[in-house]
Formats: sequence, structure tokens, C-alpha cells
Amino acid sequence: MKLVVIGGDAAGMSAASQARKRMGADRLEIVVFERGHFTSYSACGIPYWIGGSVSGSDALVAREPAAFRAAGIDVRMRHEVVEIDLDRRRVIARDVAGQDVVREGFDQLVYATGAVPVTPEWARIDSGGVFGVQTLDDGTAIHAWLDRDPKPRKAVVIGGGYIGVEMAEAMVRRGLDVTLLEKSAQPLSTVDPDMGERVAGAIRGLGIEIRTNAHAQGLETVDGRVRAVVTPDGALPADIVVLGLGVRPNTALAAESGIPVGVTGGIRTDLRMRVIGVPGVWAAGDCVQTVHLISGQPVHVPLGTHANKQGRVAGINIGGGYATFPGVIGTAITKVCDLEVARTGLTEQEATASGYEYVTASVESTSRAGYYPGAARMTIKLIAEKRTGLLLGAQIVGREEAAKRIDSLAVAIWNRMTVEEMTGLDLGYAPPFAPVWDPVLIAARKATDAIHAEG
Amino acid sequence: MKLVVIGGDAAGMSAASQARKRMGADRLEIVVFERGHFTSYSACGIPYWIGGSVSGSDALVAREPAAFRAAGIDVRMRHEVVEIDLDRRRVIARDVAGQDVVREGFDQLVYATGAVPVTPEWARIDSGGVFGVQTLDDGTAIHAWLDRDPKPRKAVVIGGGYIGVEMAEAMVRRGLDVTLLEKSAQPLSTVDPDMGERVAGAIRGLGIEIRTNAHAQGLETVDGRVRAVVTPDGALPADIVVLGLGVRPNTALAAESGIPVGVTGGIRTDLRMRVIGVPGVWAAGDCVQTVHLISGQPVHVPLGTHANKQGRVAGINIGGGYATFPGVIGTAITKVCDLEVARTGLTEQEATASGYEYVTASVESTSRAGYYPGAARMTIKLIAEKRTGLLLGAQIVGREEAAKRIDSLAVAIWNRMTVEEMTGLDLGYAPPFAPVWDPVLIAARKATDAIHAEG
Repeated sequence: MKLVVIGGDAAGMSAASQARKRMGADRLEIVVFERGHFTSYSACGIPYWIGGSVSGSDALVAREPAAFRAAGIDVRMRHEVVEIDLDRRRVIARDVAGQDVVREGFDQLVYATGAVPVTPEWARIDSGGVFGVQTLDDGTAIHAWLDRDPKPRKAVVIGGGYIGVEMAEAMVRRGLDVTLLEKSAQPLSTVDPDMGERVAGAIRGLGIEIRTNAHAQGLETVDGRVRAVVTPDGALPADIVVLGLGVRPNTALAAESGIPVGVTGGIRTDLRMRVIGVPGVWAAGDCVQTVHLISGQPVHVPLGTHANKQGRVAGINIGGGYATFPGVIGTAITKVCDLEVARTGLTEQEATASGYEYVTASVESTSRAGYYPGAARMTIKLIAEKRTGLLLGAQIVGREEAAKRIDSLAVAIWNRMTVEEMTGLDLGYAPPFAPVWDPVLIAARKATDAIHAEG
Repeated sequence: MKLVVIGGDAAGMSAASQARKRMGADRLEIVVFERGHFTSYSACGIPYWIGGSVSGSDALVAREPAAFRAAGIDVRMRHEVVEIDLDRRRVIARDVAGQDVVREGFDQLVYATGAVPVTPEWARIDSGGVFGVQTLDDGTAIHAWLDRDPKPRKAVVIGGGYIGVEMAEAMVRRGLDVTLLEKSAQPLSTVDPDMGERVAGAIRGLGIEIRTNAHAQGLETVDGRVRAVVTPDGALPADIVVLGLGVRPNTALAAESGIPVGVTGGIRTDLRMRVIGVPGVWAAGDCVQTVHLISGQPVHVPLGTHANKQGRVAGINIGGGYATFPGVIGTAITKVCDLEVARTGLTEQEATASGYEYVTASVESTSRAGYYPGAARMTIKLIAEKRTGLLLGAQIVGREEAAKRIDSLAVAIWNRMTVEEMTGLDLGYAPPFAPVWDPVLIAARKATDAIHAEG
């Protein structure tokens, strides 16, 4: 049997590795095509690499092509698959450097092409200095640009999502003047405005200028280099422009080949990561659509943690095992300077859009017992369904030992706990780690009261 | 209606406050008897106060008697209840200082006397220098003893449980030579030996001498002061002796009064904290027995977090509301120097004693992405029921952002998740907070494999 994998990052290589683990080279041939220079890397680490807290791209690579080859996985680097022929069961790949063409038959195919940065028409220019942040090759290009002479001094980051905010901080750490353009009222709109306010404060605290309700409409260039970002309020000088407008599933090839794409633009799969309606074809990672278990809606959530899990699930099943990827609940965390920000489940806006009515409860508490040295303030917000009290969402903003507390709330949402049940939870207590009433318990109590007050 | 509360710490004052919140002074009179000098304090904070990282006893008091009085709660400090007459519905209390006697009738009674340190016969001496660590008054006495001239130089801590280990560290911070006597093979036997080994290493790293498989059998005194602890292997010089042999429910008065005590020595209550079989009498805190939700067995778990919850539940119900305390799952965390230790559910030994057969999985991982600065090693161990894969217990040892990760595992146990279900959990991922495979997920994967291997 022969397995072809398109894309050699987290999802593709996890699938290849898991299939290999279950089936030796005598039973399964595995060929992976990767168009870039790296396999199995952490794209999430790029901002820290750019900012200088991670030393080099090597650190971000979990496993080199050679290691996969040693395990009997035929990794073809710098090869881009340009055609999938589902009838003839073969792919056609192009050597990115040499323009050679390779044809490879398959019995099973894993589509793991990841995502591509959203790039408006005006940003598709040949001039240098405009970057998306999706692959290690993007990271290499940004580094090279920042090291040019004369050194870039002004950066404009377009879009205030996770990558935008992390890249804005990275640029500050590299000594640039940074402006962040955000189309809505505040950056990090993945949390509710009341929580996002604190995040905006932390971003400004880094010396970053935030322009909210702002958008770019063009670029000015000189001698093949970007010089400014054009906005309705005028031009913003820029020696480097980072696109943080989000990403979309990289599914052009899939669509051309008859692999169906869902409403989010991602490929539709079943629980085992089989592409719906296309036997022998699997998909995993940032190119797929999944289901949000609390809203019940299809969603596209490009995150390394999901890509790894989905790839692993596909590989186990291809290898004759059994595993499923049940869906997501929207957990995400980030850090802005020393401010930790976390969310899980639905925000207020998402809850409303899903059809829920809800109550909210926000509490201010501390990371340790109030009297214990170093106790830091934190805010926890819960969103619970009206009447049933089902926990729908949670958000945390704090300064130490804050963000990962979202996990206990994520497990509570996963298990469809009500906020009243949560008041009984046996969470870890000791003065260096929590007040005697853990912030999560205080929030659950307050949300319970809100449910009762609502009647 | 009149409510009498015996004991003015976490459980008693939570009950009084919650009842008051629901019923004004016109409908409910509340009298609290507290034999010590403090209300609503954190006994868990005493080691940090002794060690000097918390400035004074004031910091450990959540709420002063005057604040309760202002809320219409008649707090009688330094009054010890010496008799409960269930037939006549009254208590008799003695003024600890003045020997006056007070009789007080009640309609509802809350028994919240806490726990007392286990004190072997040989430790019951009149000589100074031997201390339990249960009340702020104990903390005051230890401070006074450490400040005497000549200053105590050698400390022996008897018992290597949480309090013993925390007090041993506190004594080191006060500059004493410390020896820890532990009757079993290693201290902190609340975690399995493989995890406890690391804890023993951290304790020794503080310069504390640990004597394992060791016990005390007597004390030597001179001029009314302790001078040494006698063991089968000889006498250990000691200027101060701390008893860390655990605590037992303070239920002598209850037993004398006909309030039934369970197999653990704690008072038996129903889910609303009503004493079983004694109408109008409630109990909460370190003096009660509760149920371990995973073993199904009655347990006595003296912890501030439970005391607060139980007191709150009793008070809500007394005030005409509805709340329950469902039981515990054995979550506990502590810190030894910078080593964080956490557990939840059952240890291997407890699982066996409960009748479970199980598999275990231990993984070494990091607190952050491996490439992110400051990533610290951590070990997570899971215990899962054979065949069903139900998560029965979890333990964590690590050096930063480790211990509170136990909460997500506690919520998983609470919801009776299997380790296989857990492999799909949507936990927070970002390089500053976790590797792309969170340590909890890696452990769940490994435990799942162990379940399948077991067949």
C-alpha cells in the first residue's frame, strides 16, 4: 500500500509517523511532499524567533527530514503538489527549485497543506518588505529583511489578532517603532471587549501605537520596497509591513481536484479525519474545518495543537488503528508582555450568534493567597447559559499563573458542567498557588447567583 | 430563630455569614463561640508566617471579629463550648480567661470545631518547645519560642506530611538546623514513591536532614524545656519540636453530646451538611467526615478549601437556600523550595486499597515549548482503571507552572473521563505556556496505550 502526504508540517508528519508506527515499510510506502525548507516546525514560535527570545529556526523544528527518512518516510522537500488526480489515484508534484515534475500514485492520500495568510488584493505586490507569518520560510525572510542596511525602523502590523499582537511585540523587541492597525474597536477581539481593554492597555504599555477602527487600503512603494501603508486617514510610514489579517485554509488544490470544501473554506472530514465523500483521502491541520462542540457550528481554527492531534488521528486510522478527533471548544491563550490572556468556549458575541441566551460573571482575584508574596491580580469571566447554567465560555486575564487556569475551565466546558456543579470542584489549594477560594470557584459561585437572579 | 456556631474559623464563620446573608437579624440571631484569639484565619499560611515570607498574623486573618459583629453576628472570643445539651437545645461555654460560664439556647447548631494535631502520649508534656501547627495561637507561640534567648538552633520536625515539610522549610528559613523524622520510606507519602523521591531530593537540597523509617518515642527535657527527641536510634538534640503527625477531627465534645462520629473520627453529615440523625445540628470543616468520590470511601480531609465550602453550604441551607457539598477527590498541592508537587484522585496505594486494578503512565515534559526561554521540566503521572480507562488519579512534580495543572486533571476525574477521551481535550496552547502537545495530553496518550496494551 502507498500513502502520499501533501504537506510536511505538524499534521502531515504526525499522520505519516503514526501510520509508519503501525505499519512497517514492508506493508506501507510513505511519500511526503513539502514545498518549503522545513518539516514539523512550530509556526507559533515565529514571533519569538523574530523577537529574539528563540535563537534560530532550528529550535522551532521538532524533527528534521533526515530523521523521518531514517524512519522509512520518503520526504521530498521543496516539492509542491500541483495536481491531484482522484480517478487515477495519483498526484503531480513540481520541484520548486528545479521545475522537474514528479508523478506519484497513491492508495491513501493525506491532504495537509495548512493555511495561507489572508492577503488583500492591494497587498499582493512584488515589492519587498511585506510579510505574512505562516511558515518558517516567512520567518527567514522577515529576519533577512530586518537585518538589511539601512535597518528598517518603522513597522506597521495590519490586524490585531494573536499573530498580529505577537509580531507587534517582536518588532518592539527588535527596536522598531510599531503601529498596529485594527479594524474593530480593539485588538484581540477573540476575547470580549471588557477583557480586551486590558490587553489593549498592555500593548500600549509596550510603546506600540494602536489605531483602532482602522484599516489599510494600499501600500506605497519606492524602488521595489514598501514605504508606507495607505489608510483612509492618511499614509503611515513603514519599512516593514506584517500581515496579521488571519489565515484561510490552503484548499485551492483541493477544490480544483474535487475534494469538497465546507462553509468555512476548510475541508470537511468525519471524526476519523476521512474527507467526507472521497474514499481513501484524509485531511488534517489548518486546511480542515472542524466543529465547535458548544455552538454546534462548523469552524476553522488553525492551531498547532489541533493540527498535531488531527494528523495523529488520521495516521492511527490509516495504520489500521482507531482514533477520533471530536472537535474543538475554542481554547486559546497568549501573552502580551507579561499579561496573560486566555479564553475557552464561546465569547458573548459567539454565544449570541449561536443562539444562546446567557448570564455573565466576572471576578477579580489573585494567583496566590492574598497574603503570600507575589500574589498577582487576575480577572476571570464566565458565560453560562440562562436557566440551565451550562458553562458556555470563560476568559482570563492576569499577570502570572493565570492563562493556563483556562484548562480546568476547558475541561469543565468539555464535560458540559453547570456553574453550580462547578462550585463543588476539588481544585488545588495551597497559599503559594491559590487563595482558599480559588478564582475559578469564586467565578462559579457568582455565575450561579446570576443564574438564580435571572430566574 | 437562634443559631449557635461552635468554632470561629473558616467553616463556622462561613456558615454564620451565609446564614446572615439570607436572614436578617430580625429573623435570625447568631452567636459564635471561638476559644482562640482569631476568627476566619488561614492556618495553611502559618508555615509561611513562621518562615518570614508573610509579615504577621494579621495578614492571615480574612475577617476580624469586629467585622462579623458589625454584620450582626455575635462573636464571643476566648469562649470554649464545654457542653452541648441536645435535649434542652443549649450549649454551655466557658470564658477561657475568666472562667465565667455562659449558657446559650439554640434552634440550629453548627459544629465547626476543626481538628487537633495528633499528639502521642509522650508528647503531652508541660515543657516548652513542643508545638502543633493548627491555630494562629500555635503560630504566635512558635514565633515567641523562636525569639527567646538563647535562640533555638536545632529543630526536629516529626512527620513528613504537608505541614511537616512546610514547617521544616520554614525552620530552615529562620536559620535553624532541621531534622525531619518520617515513619515511612520517604516524606510526602501522599504521592507515590516514584514521585516522592523527587520531593525528598528537594527537601535535602534545602539542607534538611531526613530520617526515614524513623519515629520518635519520647522527649528529653531540662528545666521545663525540650532538649532532645528520643528515637530507637538515639536522641536527636532539639531546641524546638514541631509535631507534623497529622490532625484528627476535634470531636470529643460531639461524642460526649451524642453527635455521631464516623469511622474516620469525623462527624457524619448529609450532602447539605446536616449531621446525620440529629435534627437542627450541622457540622462543617476539619471536624467532619466526607466521601471520596472515586474510592467511594469515607475520608477525613482537613483542608481550608473544603472547610470554606462546607461552611458556606451549611449557612446557605440554614438561611433557607439550597446547596450541597458532594464530596472530595483528594486534590492537594504544595511547594518545597521551588519544587511544585500536586496530586488528585487516588494514588496507586489508595487505588489498590479501594479495589481498583489500574495501569499507570508517567511522562516527562516541559512547562513551555521546549525552545521557549525558561521551559522547566515536569513529570506527570496518571493512574487509570484497567479496561475502562477511567482516570483514577494524577500526580505532578515540576518547577514552574506545574502544580496548578492538577486542576484540569481534577476536573477530568470529577467528570469521570477516560484517558482516551482526554486525548481529545482542547487545552490552552501557546509557546510561553505549553509544548504543542500539552504534558497532560501526552500523559493521556501514554495511559491510553497502556490500557490497550493491557487488553
